Amino acid sequence: MKLTYSPASPFARKVRITAIELGLIDKIDLTPVTVAPGTPNDEYSKIHPLKKLPVLILDDGDVIVDSYVIVEYLDELAGGGKLIPAAGPLRWNVKRDHSLLQGMLDSMLLCRYENITRPEALRWKAWSDDHWNRAWLGMARFEQSDVLSRSELDIAQITLVCVLGYADFRFADCGWRKAYPKLDAFHQRMLERPSIKISVPPPA
Amino acid sequence: MKLTYSPASPFARKVRITAIELGLIDKIDLTPVTVAPGTPNDEYSKIHPLKKLPVLILDDGDVIVDSYVIVEYLDELAGGGKLIPAAGPLRWNVKRDHSLLQGMLDSMLLCRYENITRPEALRWKAWSDDHWNRAWLGMARFEQSDVLSRSELDIAQITLVCVLGYADFRFADCGWRKAYPKLDAFHQRMLERPSIKISVPPPA
Repeated sequence: MKLTYSPASPFARKVRITAIELGLIDKIDLTPVTVAPGTPNDEYSKIHPLKKLPVLILDDGDVIVDSYVIVEYLDELAGGGKLIPAAGPLRWNVKRDHSLLQGMLDSMLLCRYENITRPEALRWKAWSDDHWNRAWLGMARFEQSDVLSRSELDIAQITLVCVLGYADFRFADCGWRKAYPKLDAFHQRMLERPSIKISVPPPA
Repeated sequence: MKLTYSPASPFARKVRITAIELGLIDKIDLTPVTVAPGTPNDEYSKIHPLKKLPVLILDDGDVIVDSYVIVEYLDELAGGGKLIPAAGPLRWNVKRDHSLLQGMLDSMLLCRYENITRPEALRWKAWSDDHWNRAWLGMARFEQSDVLSRSELDIAQITLVCVLGYADFRFADCGWRKAYPKLDAFHQRMLERPSIKISVPPPA
């Protein structure tokens, strides 16, 4: 299988950590791709019309898009119920939490595009403030969440690490460690896992 | 259960159609909420820090966010494997297609925010062109897709209807019917279902 990938993408990082934790990373070729909003990439648009990372390209040529669907696919390939609980209330908690975290990442990327990618004269502070506020309120939610204390690794924990790693990577001065000390302790603990450590984004 | 809702939201429409098709609509109170990027809604942010529609609020107060996770939850409540195939290659096709369509909707909403919500002097044409192009290339993909001919209703078909209905609602002059005649025929056929017809967005 091939995975389109960038070391800066938190969505690609989530899948990479998943593949390592499930013992599937050796079956996946990481294929670097560069995409940016406002810049065409016609070749990649043929693979994924939304021009997003990551995409899993199966050996038969079939394509799976959306980091969460790729995680579901890999989880099933590894036997099922590994990183997404197969049943019970925890299943819906993990899925709900993952969706919240995914939406926080979407908002953080929109902030980044607004503050860096967009021409300076066209930036709208109310927009970036709103999206940053969503990510920040989301962190406040997770500061109080049982995600931090669950003993079995799940996709919500992995994605929370990707949120915090992305905050360090692109919003280094935002002060999340001071505001959310429980998230800080969780993040430090998670960094002891090789899958998390090896996938930290490169220096910005 | 309660579902936060707006008749203009294609994501809420997807869940509403799902609930009707699964025979669960009578168990759900539709609760109208108004959200807009750049405009705070502190009360709703307490329910959903990302301030998005829809949210399913269960009778025990638990909250499920993300229209797709809500669809999964309702599908399981109705016995499972109804709108999302439970196994086999079709399962991944439907999930992949749903994710593509969801991303197309995200891009269409970003276009709308760029072209209407954002102050006129701050609009960036390369951004809205890029996002419109993603939606348009996505439609081209679905014009050739077996989604159009599958006989059992699934969540990809429902979401494709929501994409096309949103195009009519917010991009009435985009010309999708002329460019994509197979999508037009599919859309007309789907409008014969009461769930689809009753949930068409109101006149813009």
